[in-house]
Amino acid sequence: MRDPIVTLLTDFGTKDYYVASMKGVILGINPRCKVVDISHHIHPQDIMAGAFVLANAFSYFPEGTIHLAVVDPGVGGARAPILIVTDHFFFVGPDNGLFSLVLRKEKIRETYVLTEKRFFLPEISQTFHGRDIFAPVAGHLTLGISPKVFGRRIDSLKTLNFPEPIVRGMNLIGEVIHIDSFGNLITNIRREGFSQFIQGRPFLIKAGKGIIKGLKDGYWEGKKNELIALFGSGGCLEIAVREGSAEKELKLRKGDSIRISVKREQ
Amino acid sequence: MRDPIVTLLTDFGTKDYYVASMKGVILGINPRCKVVDISHHIHPQDIMAGAFVLANAFSYFPEGTIHLAVVDPGVGGARAPILIVTDHFFFVGPDNGLFSLVLRKEKIRETYVLTEKRFFLPEISQTFHGRDIFAPVAGHLTLGISPKVFGRRIDSLKTLNFPEPIVRGMNLIGEVIHIDSFGNLITNIRREGFSQFIQGRPFLIKAGKGIIKGLKDGYWEGKKNELIALFGSGGCLEIAVREGSAEKELKLRKGDSIRISVKREQ
Amino acid sequence: MRDPIVTLLTDFGTKDYYVASMKGVILGINPRCKVVDISHHIHPQDIMAGAFVLANAFSYFPEGTIHLAVVDPGVGGARAPILIVTDHFFFVGPDNGLFSLVLRKEKIRETYVLTEKRFFLPEISQTFHGRDIFAPVAGHLTLGISPKVFGRRIDSLKTLNFPEPIVRGMNLIGEVIHIDSFGNLITNIRREGFSQFIQGRPFLIKAGKGIIKGLKDGYWEGKKNELIALFGSGGCLEIAVREGSAEKELKLRKGDSIRISVKREQ
Repeated sequence: MRDPIVTLLTDFGTKDYYVASMKGVILGINPRCKVVDISHHIHPQDIMAGAFVLANAFSYFPEGTIHLAVVDPGVGGARAPILIVTDHFFFVGPDNGLFSLVLRKEKIRETYVLTEKRFFLPEISQTFHGRDIFAPVAGHLTLGISPKVFGRRIDSLKTLNFPEPIVRGMNLIGEVIHIDSFGNLITNIRREGFSQFIQGRPFLIKAGKGIIKGLKDGYWEGKKNELIALFGSGGCLEIAVREGSAEKELKLRKGDSIRISVKREQ
Repeated sequence: MRDPIVTLLTDFGTKDYYVASMKGVILGINPRCKVVDISHHIHPQDIMAGAFVLANAFSYFPEGTIHLAVVDPGVGGARAPILIVTDHFFFVGPDNGLFSLVLRKEKIRETYVLTEKRFFLPEISQTFHGRDIFAPVAGHLTLGISPKVFGRRIDSLKTLNFPEPIVRGMNLIGEVIHIDSFGNLITNIRREGFSQFIQGRPFLIKAGKGIIKGLKDGYWEGKKNELIALFGSGGCLEIAVREGSAEKELKLRKGDSIRISVKREQ
Repeated sequence: MRDPIVTLLTDFGTKDYYVASMKGVILGINPRCKVVDISHHIHPQDIMAGAFVLANAFSYFPEGTIHLAVVDPGVGGARAPILIVTDHFFFVGPDNGLFSLVLRKEKIRETYVLTEKRFFLPEISQTFHGRDIFAPVAGHLTLGISPKVFGRRIDSLKTLNFPEPIVRGMNLIGEVIHIDSFGNLITNIRREGFSQFIQGRPFLIKAGKGIIKGLKDGYWEGKKNELIALFGSGGCLEIAVREGSAEKELKLRKGDSIRISVKREQ
């Protein structure tokens, strides 16, 4: 039998003891685990950013992987700690919308509120459920303990309102939802919605002071430092500068709008 | 038998080849090792910061884990390379106080100066003992080689003088010893010392321009952007801003003092 | 049989889903893999920096390790995806010079252009060959599939022109090729070329406004905050400040020249 895989996504950064203590707890319960980092550099308390990164990474892992995610501004408060079982994976973390985007791609089988304290650390802080609740639950899950033993079944989950692109006349208006470390501006405009709107008509893309005609297939099609648009590896429309940073070039930020305009047919 | 675990804590950062070459050396000696990062973002040469992060992470790992730590401004000089065996763990690194805080929690069984060159890399640089001495010693330890074979037993270790809170009249004065990536200000005031000083009396906490009444149990008890104080996941008094950064709000730095004042009884 | 090791070196950073999706793909093909990060903080699209870090790390890993490296400004374009088999390792990545420095140390046995799509992900983006081509090829390699099955053999590789030190009269002129996270300035002057030039004569090292007499063996030989020169752990001449940052002290950058001067014999 292969060793179980637990992935971690948090906003804890990597300079503190937070991530390491979670790994220690998991390995303490099951030393056979492979613990794999998705990212610990989600902007502090930015649940949407965590949801975006998780939703673009989780499906590449082997079936049965346990995805533990903690972006948790309400730690210790009313939000429930949960375990979601889907057709292919397990998800452990706070019920605050962090799994919203994952659940557009994965079918839920069952969801549980984590109530069984015997699977937690003996002392539970009110500030660090990642270490005290979520990590030990993930560790115990890797031992093959049935999900239903961890708590009480529930039927609904908190969802976040992710911004969706809107059509206004001859314009499709989306926004920047993520800026990657290359400075690529990733928007909420997906290929399907884009094609449906464009229907083969010529279009312009307006991103701040930048105006882009047409799409490229890859970065390499741009000339060096050219501002280009393309559908990126996550299926979203992306504004980029070949071997440069669209973020610096256009001085745009998360939440800024991106507009696709078609000409009125004459 | 489970695969041995080696943790790494350094101030090497992650943009260079330093950490990777240590991992390569360890896996070259024992490919079955699980190498787990504690942190590589300790501020360069800040032994106290390394000691703090290590002391808050080490105990969560399974018994028998080898903790390799390198924050080593004196590399190549007079400070000795050591191996400490405690009741539950092994610690490998320089004898410069880096293990001081760990050793308040762990009982030492034996300490050795690493002298046996057959366990080092064949060529030893004077600038990178992490790769050339500590990593290969950790690798050989995972093979089950007895600690006493690695060197000469010693009886005393270098310790650092960590700042301790002091009582002055009606005040308990501590200081900021760590600022985490959320901007939480973590102090050297521990729960026991705090309770002993307060003895149920009302108190104010003064942190720079901030004045805080009372303690919260968790961040969630604060209103958004409220300045609060609480005992954090490491057992230390912590100044925080709910969903914000106390560091930015108060513009405090490591070493700045935090004062707990009780009123004179009348 | 020990578990196969795959190392990753990229310029993807760690805040996005890029690295995690590559790890997921590799573990999805072979869950027994140990995936080890070399670095993901290579400056975006800086092939030379990637080549430097890889060349200083790869040889410490056990024989048979698969080194997957992606610094790939031309992704999706004309540059070929390749697999290099050397006497001790496998290298997978783009043919853009990224392996140039490795190949000064390792003897090539065979090189292949990756053409066999059955070893790629079913859908190949034009923006992320790390996930769609290189990771699945590395994953399949760990299963013991013969390298020659992955593509067509080729005989030449793209090489980068790394700057070499030059001798001009009584001066040896090199340049800063890397600045590490301590602010140490690492030059392209290697020990052999240095000795050959100096031939026992007294010399001065000029680095920006700094003038250094002689070499140290280790950082510890400098006084605190002293500007020193020494041969570092990678065998290159390095300008450092004891417990400080030579980068900040001298305000030098990558590409700035470093001059070794000997006096005319009289």
